[in-house]
Parts: sequence; C-alpha cells; structure tokens
Amino acid sequence: MTVRDLEICFSPAIFDAYADSDAVVVVVDVLRATSSICTAFANGVSEIIPVATVEEAREMKERGYLLAAERDGFVLDFADFGNSPFNFSPEKVRGRTVVYSTTNGTGIMKRASECHDVVIGSYLNFTSLCVWLEKQDRKVVIVCAGWKTRFSLEDAVCAGAIAHRLISGGRFTTVCDSVHAATDLWMAAKADLPGYIEKAAQRSRLRDKGLDDCLEYCHTFDVTDVIPVVRDGMLVAMMQGPHGPETPSLPGDGITETN
Amino acid sequence: MTVRDLEICFSPAIFDAYADSDAVVVVVDVLRATSSICTAFANGVSEIIPVATVEEAREMKERGYLLAAERDGFVLDFADFGNSPFNFSPEKVRGRTVVYSTTNGTGIMKRASECHDVVIGSYLNFTSLCVWLEKQDRKVVIVCAGWKTRFSLEDAVCAGAIAHRLISGGRFTTVCDSVHAATDLWMAAKADLPGYIEKAAQRSRLRDKGLDDCLEYCHTFDVTDVIPVVRDGMLVAMMQGPHGPETPSLPGDGITETN
Repeated sequence: MTVRDLEICFSPAIFDAYADSDAVVVVVDVLRATSSICTAFANGVSEIIPVATVEEAREMKERGYLLAAERDGFVLDFADFGNSPFNFSPEKVRGRTVVYSTTNGTGIMKRASECHDVVIGSYLNFTSLCVWLEKQDRKVVIVCAGWKTRFSLEDAVCAGAIAHRLISGGRFTTVCDSVHAATDLWMAAKADLPGYIEKAAQRSRLRDKGLDDCLEYCHTFDVTDVIPVVRDGMLVAMMQGPHGPETPSLPGDGITETN
Repeated sequence: MTVRDLEICFSPAIFDAYADSDAVVVVVDVLRATSSICTAFANGVSEIIPVATVEEAREMKERGYLLAAERDGFVLDFADFGNSPFNFSPEKVRGRTVVYSTTNGTGIMKRASECHDVVIGSYLNFTSLCVWLEKQDRKVVIVCAGWKTRFSLEDAVCAGAIAHRLISGGRFTTVCDSVHAATDLWMAAKADLPGYIEKAAQRSRLRDKGLDDCLEYCHTFDVTDVIPVVRDGMLVAMMQGPHGPETPSLPGDGITETN
C-alpha cells in the first residue's frame, strides 16, 4: 500500500485549492452538522438529502419531506426541527428520509461531490472513519465547515485529531501546512477538550442561544461506527459488511473491513 | 482608551468575512514579501508600488520603473530583481521608487485598501508595529498572505506572535477563532522558531530553489522600526516623529509616539 497525501482545508471558501477528483473528502462540522448526521444514521435514518439554500429546503418541505433546517442556530420556521443531534432521535428518523440544511455544513457536501468520495466525520464516528480511511489507499482531504467562510477552532481541532491518527499510523504523509497546524492544535487541546473548546466562537454562539446542551456529546469519541457517505447527492450509511463498513459501490476496492 | 477587537484572517481568499472599513489591516507574508518590504524601507526606498498581476508589472517596467517581481519564487524575466529581502539593498533602492509584485503578498494590499489603514508586518518591525497598533484605538485585522489561497504556517505563527503581544497588553480582546489558533501555534513555535518553521511548505519551496538563505533573517525580531503603510495605492514609510512612527495624514488621531 502506497503512503498517501493528507491535506486539511480550513474553509469551504478555499476548497478549490484542495479539490482533487481522486481524493476522499471528509467533511467536519463538529458543532453541529456532522455530529448530527452521524447521530441520525446511528439512529436508523434511511437517507439524508443535504440542500444548500433556504429556498431548496422550503421546496422539499412542500414536497412532503421531513425537514431539519437552521440558519445561525435558529430553526427555520417551516422546518420540522433544527440542527441539534438530539433532534435526530430514533422515534423521529428511523426508516425516514430527512432533508437537511444548515448554515455551514451542508453546502460543502454538494461542492465536494466531484471528488472520489465524500464522507462525514466527527468525534462520534472517529475510529471507524480512521480505520476506513487507512484502507482506501487514496489521498484524503479533510474539509472544516467553519463559520460563514471563517476558520472554526472546533473543526480544526477535530481535523487535527483525525490527522494525528492517520499520520501516526504510517499510511499517510503530508506537505500541507494546515495539517501541521491542526495537529498542533489537537495536541494543545486533547488533555482537556471541553476546556479548550470554551474559547471557540461557536461555543459562545450556542450558549447564547441555549443550544449548548450537546457540547459534551459532540466531543465524545466513538458513539457509533457508521460512516455517512454521499451517493447520488444523498447521504447514506456506508453499507455494513460482517466486520464493519464496506464500499461495495467502488469496483476494484476489494473488501474494506474494519478491525 | 477602549479595548478593541483583534482578528486574524488566514487567507486573502476569505478576507471579505473580516473586512471592516474602520479597521487597521496588517498584512503578513513572512517568506518573503513583507520581510522584503520592511527591509526596503529600512534601506531607504522612497516608495513601493504594489501591483497584483504580471501584466501590470510588465507595463510598469516598460514605463521605466525599477521592478521587483516573482512568481512561485522565480524572478520574472523582465524584472530587475526578485523577492529576496537581500535584493533590496541600500545600493539598489535608496531614494528610488520600486514596483513590486509577488505570488501572494501584493494582491491583498490592494484588496484591503478600503479599510482605514493597511500596514506591513513582519518579525523585522515587530515591536515598532505592535506599539503603534496599541496606540491607534482601532480594531485590527491581521491578514496572512498564505500561498495561493492556502493557509501558511509561517504567516500564522507570525500573526500569532503579534496577537499574543497585543492581547497580553490589555488593549485588545478577541472572539476570533483564528486568533486563538494562531496564538497557540506561536506558543508551540516560539521556543525554537527556525526549528518549528522547518515543516512549513514554503520553507521547502525556498530550499528546493536555493532561496532559503534569508530564512533566519526573516525570523529575526526588530531589525528596523519602520512601518510601511499604504497611501494612495503606494507603500510609503510611516512618517517618523521625534519618538517614532506617526500618522500625520489621519486628522484627529493626535500624536502617536512610540516608546
């Protein structure tokens, strides 16, 4: 197996500089989109349709879809619920299709869809995701959703945690400054992750709106082994083989078991 | 004096999210544009005209200007010299007007010109710059030039050094995640700055081209007290008062002495 490149893109607005049709893209939006998506699949959602604009979200609601949609932390008034992972409970989502639109996280899932694969990363599916990435034998680009094109600390730290795991494993290398920076931020944060994230702007935004009940949960490792992946514009759970996630839709990849 | 906001923008490509007509913008391109500009003014250049495109650079050369211009570390073939600070020697630049175009650093100087002031930052003028910023009573946005819209480690670390100094001084505060990140990178780097910068992609690019003789120099604190500032599209040295840089062109600012 070749040693592959690893890159981190700190804002969707500069993704063009990192885009690579041969790469696997990992989207990270810890507070809260990708944590919520992992939770939804852990709770049995059938598929999630990410839409970038409020207009698309409204149209899909009118067509009868269950809609999760927020802007700046506020639930859109025509949506069924917002962006907290606790909204995506088994009672609400099991076996359902959910249309999903958030301030930052969902736009990049569509923009990155020309890359080889787009998968969803968070602390919640950390180990499962890293094991799968190590078996793909492809370049990986981790994209931090950020905040309205800005750099977000909590996404950079999570990207750094993934990068540290992948580089340490010996199957990835990097010449990307963002990887070095994010890894050093992860090293500074890891001894007290909730304490470190206290200074993040998004942590303050969620507190100001009374939406910070999910903070500890969103920074919990390995709640699920699900890996959401974009297929034909929709998020689905990567098919589960007898020993973990597989990607049977990719001919020639062979069996990609998790340990 | 009010406590003012401090922000850091990690790439010119996301500057729109940080632009503020009331702010002082500090452009940082450690390897090598802003280090070279500080050196040029320390060596007596009259003014520097930053131009963003190769076409503009060629046109200005044809009009008879002394031209410093590079792309990707290579001197443009019609230029007088390139982007090493050692090119801007007193013999070459004293009393002259220099037209200057680089891969990353010069474009943002023009884009930020709608802000209250655009000044040039580097380690070389670190203390003089910080003292002046502390006396402006204005929001400060530090813009890292980066590399072709990408995040650059050496610029982020220098921005973090400036931010750490300004926040520690008590006259600035921040809710900007990039400031927290850059400050933590500076804290990780400061004990061995040249050693830390070894992993930066731009450090490798310069080594590959044999252009890394300026690396130690570009990471040297306080070689000069000059503060280059953009006035009418040109870089000039901020006028020197009896005790340091002043900004006499700004009515109502009063005397802004350095210590």
